[in-house]
Order: sequence, then C-alpha cells, then structure tokens
Amino acid sequence: MADQDAQIGEGTRPPEIPAVRWEEPPEGPVLVLLDQTRLPAEEVELVCTDASALVEAIRSLAVRGAPLLGIVGAYGVALAAARGFDVEEAASALAGARPTAVNLAVGVRRARAAHRDALARTGDAREAAEAALAAARALHREDAEASVRMAGHGLALLDELLPGGGHRVLTHCNTGSLVSGGEGTAFAVALAAHRAGRLRRLWVDETRPLLQGARLTAYEAARTGMAYTLLTDNAAGSLFAAGEVDAVLIGADRIAADGSVANKVGSYPLAVLARYHHVPFIVVAPVTTVDPDTPDGASIEVEQRPGYEVTEVTAPQAPVTGAGGGIPVAPLGTQAYNPAFDVTPPELVTAIVTEEGVISPVTSEALAGLCARSRQVTIS
Amino acid sequence: MADQDAQIGEGTRPPEIPAVRWEEPPEGPVLVLLDQTRLPAEEVELVCTDASALVEAIRSLAVRGAPLLGIVGAYGVALAAARGFDVEEAASALAGARPTAVNLAVGVRRARAAHRDALARTGDAREAAEAALAAARALHREDAEASVRMAGHGLALLDELLPGGGHRVLTHCNTGSLVSGGEGTAFAVALAAHRAGRLRRLWVDETRPLLQGARLTAYEAARTGMAYTLLTDNAAGSLFAAGEVDAVLIGADRIAADGSVANKVGSYPLAVLARYHHVPFIVVAPVTTVDPDTPDGASIEVEQRPGYEVTEVTAPQAPVTGAGGGIPVAPLGTQAYNPAFDVTPPELVTAIVTEEGVISPVTSEALAGLCARSRQVTIS
Repeated sequence: MADQDAQIGEGTRPPEIPAVRWEEPPEGPVLVLLDQTRLPAEEVELVCTDASALVEAIRSLAVRGAPLLGIVGAYGVALAAARGFDVEEAASALAGARPTAVNLAVGVRRARAAHRDALARTGDAREAAEAALAAARALHREDAEASVRMAGHGLALLDELLPGGGHRVLTHCNTGSLVSGGEGTAFAVALAAHRAGRLRRLWVDETRPLLQGARLTAYEAARTGMAYTLLTDNAAGSLFAAGEVDAVLIGADRIAADGSVANKVGSYPLAVLARYHHVPFIVVAPVTTVDPDTPDGASIEVEQRPGYEVTEVTAPQAPVTGAGGGIPVAPLGTQAYNPAFDVTPPELVTAIVTEEGVISPVTSEALAGLCARSRQVTIS
Repeated sequence: MADQDAQIGEGTRPPEIPAVRWEEPPEGPVLVLLDQTRLPAEEVELVCTDASALVEAIRSLAVRGAPLLGIVGAYGVALAAARGFDVEEAASALAGARPTAVNLAVGVRRARAAHRDALARTGDAREAAEAALAAARALHREDAEASVRMAGHGLALLDELLPGGGHRVLTHCNTGSLVSGGEGTAFAVALAAHRAGRLRRLWVDETRPLLQGARLTAYEAARTGMAYTLLTDNAAGSLFAAGEVDAVLIGADRIAADGSVANKVGSYPLAVLARYHHVPFIVVAPVTTVDPDTPDGASIEVEQRPGYEVTEVTAPQAPVTGAGGGIPVAPLGTQAYNPAFDVTPPELVTAIVTEEGVISPVTSEALAGLCARSRQVTIS
C-alpha cells in the first residue's frame, strides 16, 4: 500500500486551469471559477465577487460536483465576510442553491462556524473573515488529500476484486479534478489505475441531459492520455452483455445513513445492470458526502430540474433558439420528467470507497464506523 | 375481442403526411418519403426516383423503422422495375442498405420474387414491373392490417396483465405510423389503450443518440392527444424505482428463432430493469420481424454506426459545425462506441405480440408455431 500510494502521489499534477481559485486583486478578493458549461469548447473563467453570483453559478451548473460544491460554499462564506456582506444571509443562500449534494451545506456550515467562533472570540470582523477563509482553504486542501487517499484505497480494491489487471471501468457523469480540490473521486481511482498501468479502458457514459460525461469526463480523460471511449448512457447495457465491463466506478452527491447513494440520474440503472451481470458497483466519495441526518434513500430530496434540459439540446457552441436557451428537439409543449439524481439502495452497492477506507458490504453500522474515524462527520 | 377490435378500427385515421407513398406523375413513378431527420421542426418530403436515392435515405435514417423499411424496400424494387433500371442490382443494394432489420431484406425479396415470376411467366418487363408494384402495395396494406391486429392483441394482453386499467406504459425509440403502413407496433398498442380510455400515461424515452423518442414519438403522441411525458433514457430507472411503470412496450428490428430480440440500443437495459422490478416487458412486432435463419441472439449482426452521432449533437434546426454534420459536444478526437441496437434474450421478454397472436413465455417452439400460422415466414 505504501508503494502504491507513493506511485500515485508522484504522478499527481495540478489541472492546468483549476476548477476554483481564490484571488486577492487590489480591488478586493474574488472567487474565480472555470465555467463548466462552456467546456470542452472553451476554457472561460467566471469571476465572482459575491454570494449571489456564486449561487447563480451553482444553479446554472457553471460549477458543480459534490466535493467542489462544498469548497465553493465555504469560499462563498469567506467572500461575503471579506467583502463585508451579511454572512448569515450569504450562507443560507449558498446552502440552499441546490438541494441534493450534502457537501454544499457542510462546506457552508464549516466556514460559517469558523466565522462565528472568531467573531465571538475576538469581536473583530476582519479576523472573523480570515477565519472563514482559513476554513475554506483547509477544506480545499483536505479534499485534495482525500482525493489521493480515495485513489489509493480504490485502486487497492479494484486490484483485489479483479486480480488479473487490465481493468475496463465504466463511469457515469464527471468525478475528476473539475469536481474536486484534487483529482476527484471515481475518476481519481481510474486515473490511479491508469498510472499504475492497470487501466485497459475507461468507458465514459455521456450522461444526459447535460452531457457531463461527453463534455467534462472526456475532456479530463483526454488530458491524462488514458484509453477512453464515449457511449450513450443506454449503450452501457450492450457493454455489460458483451462482458466488456469489469467494474463500475461512480461518485455520490449524498449517502444516507443506511448506505443509499444519491448520484447523477442514470447511476441506479447501472447498479441494476451491474448486479444482473455480477459486476462490482463501486461508489467513491469523501466522508463528507455521508449525511447522518438522512436516514435512508426515501428521505433524500431529489432535485427536479427544468424540462427544457430534455426538450432542448444545449451545446457549448450552439446558438440559442429555444425558450430554455437551447435547440428544440421535441415538439413545442412537450412535458419532460427530469430528475437530476437517482437513488441506489445499499444492497446494490458492492463497496463505498472513502478517504478513511472502504466498506463492503455496505451497512449502516459500517458506514457509522467510517464516519466515526473522520473528524468531519458526527453521527447524531 | 371482436368488440375491442372494432373499437380500435373505428378510431383509426391515416397520418396527415404518410411516411411513404407511391406517386405516378407524368414524368414517371416516384417514391415520396417524409424526411424523418427533419421532424419535428419541419415536415419535408423527399422525392426518390431510383434505388440509390432510397439507399441514401435509408442509411441517413430519413426513412427508418423495421416494418416501414420492408415496405420501402419492396417499393424500391418496383421503382427500379418501373423505370427500367437493373432490378437485381437495385434489390441487392436496397437489401444491404442496413444490416439489422430483417424486414428490409424480406420486403425486397418479396417484390423481387414477384418481378422474377412475372417476367418468367410473361416475358414482359412492364407486366413484371406491375407485379413488383402489386407486391409492394400488398405488403403495405398487410402491414396496416397487421398493425390493427397487433394493437388489438396487445391491448387485450395489457388488460389481462394489468386488470386495474390506468396503464402507465414506457416506450423506447419510435414505433408508430412513422415506421409502418398503419399505426405501427408498440405505439399502436399504446394508442389503442388511449382510445379505450385505459392509458394513463405514455413515458417516452428520448432514445439517444438520434433522439427518435423526443423527435418522433413525442410528435406522434402529441397528435393523438394522449398524456405523454418525455425523459432521458437514463431516467427510466427512477420511474421503475418509484413504481411509475406498469409495462414496457417496444418494437423489434429482428427476432431470432430462439426469441432473442434485437431492437434500438437501450432496450436491453429496460428489459433488465423491468425484470428487477417485476414489470412486464412486451415486444410488439409483425411476424415478418422473425428471422428463422438467425438461430439466436449471438447470431444477430448489430449495426455499428459512426461515432460522430455521439460526439456531436444533431438537431433539425442546428447549424452544421462538426465533421459529422452536428455540434461537437466532446473533445476533438474522442472515440465513441455506437451500436444501433442491442439484443434482449428471450428469458427477459414477457411476451411477443404479433398480428397472428401473442406468445408468452417466449420459446423457440411458440415462435415457430406463430410463424407457421403466417403466410409470410417459412421456418426452414
């Protein structure tokens, strides 16, 4: 394990354009986001000076991905504090920008708590703002470290489950450096396997409706030089049937106390296919993704997004012609069902990989044990 | 059953613009196709004067759908004969235009046989051309009649499996009047349920990569006034998990002698989901879809289509910017896996509904029995 971790660490390189960075130009601090809605066509940065700009960036998915949302939420509180805005108001707007990813609220809470404590202790707004920023930076750094540890644990698990090597891994949505302070969650495991010479192919689900797989995961995979192939989400069944998938690796937006996993819509059908074909279905997420206050899958609030994401196709270079900002592909007036996430019950999850270790089988006891090892989550 | 069939028959109305029609203007006969690649944005007709124009229309999916391909193949032979082209050459080009749908080759063979027989009998090219056209017209008419009978058998099966009524049916790809001489296959069953007041909702999979569900099935559903909702293919899992799907109804491009069903990619994952959730998975197809020369699923040749259908998004109103004629959504150079079909094994198919009746469970014996009842298919 030590050697393997070292090997992963050596290959680590920062992304060319970070998904998020804090800057302090003379006119005051800003949070700079890489606009993910424009990828892969253009690398455009959004400079945000207040929480409401961040809320808009979160809602429009310019910034997304559970771990990164936590980091952005924390920086957002720090930004409000540094610029003298109402911190409580900013925190509550940020925490509510999207409902499903628990990391967002956790990140916001952490920076707000640091701010409150410092304010109570020193009575100095500037010191409190610095405390909030320090908390955001700490979360950012911890997430990068967690990424390295998840990659190590995940690769060890892959090697244990698939002793032959030459892993052919299927992934869904986007879970690399664009969603993380480091190299991500599920993608970081695939990357570790690639660097260790044990990834034969990454199968990339395009991930409708917003095509995060086609636009973002393919962009990340292309930069690493790994062998990858894109497919429509519904073609995954053919790969399973042909025996071309050795493991499924996905991230998570929220994990309930019973081990139910909310992740990008389309994850649950993959879990059912994986079970039917006796293929391991592995969830990779930092411990902050576990929400002890959500007892089970049925209690997870699933965000319903606008129908026009389905009835219109948006692409980075496409002109706007429809009411939702895209090109209409369905008849006018067509109603669409567009849940952003689905929920996979613990019995379909082979293992959950976190920075604190791996649990398999997935039970509420094992999950509580993991959380107890972490400083960041308290089971109530 | 008699009453039900009558009720369905009464409601039958021809589509406003037929998917295919034979015309005889003074300058010679033509086959007019509704260009399905332009729907729902525009209703544009393609006027074809020879087999090569038809082959191009078939390859580009301007005309598509297993039963309709058979009809077009037969008319194509008749067109070549009527215009004095080499009939054997036209027949072989048409039959090979797409590999998976057996109906195409069956339709071509039927018109060619009529042509050959008449030529051998009379030695008159004009009489032979008329015989080919008569064969094409007969196939067209029989397909429309088969559609009515499939709708009747399918509705009776739905009512038997789901005695409560209020059916919520999920469908994939497009199987209505755009693929048929009549009202189609799976869609015709949903339409019969709608007319009988027993369809609560049609869930329409968008059907990536070419969005036949969003573009074509939604267009057909909207015209009938039925309650329908569009969804991304990967959101079907959430509907199953929520108990919102009472039955899956799909068509077929080829059915092997063992009952394996080749249909639009994404059908197999629905079959696995349906099995996991104990929901009936019903295939609706004319007996001509059964290919007794294909012994099993592994013997079905699955068409692999160009990767740009996945790496670029094409929409009827979108400008052409990518090499494949669409808008790039993945990084340049991204390789894609793009099978047009997948294969569902008979053990996952609850029933096959044909114009000759229903078989359930699906076995090679039951299928051979169905074929024996039909004049159109001979088990070798």
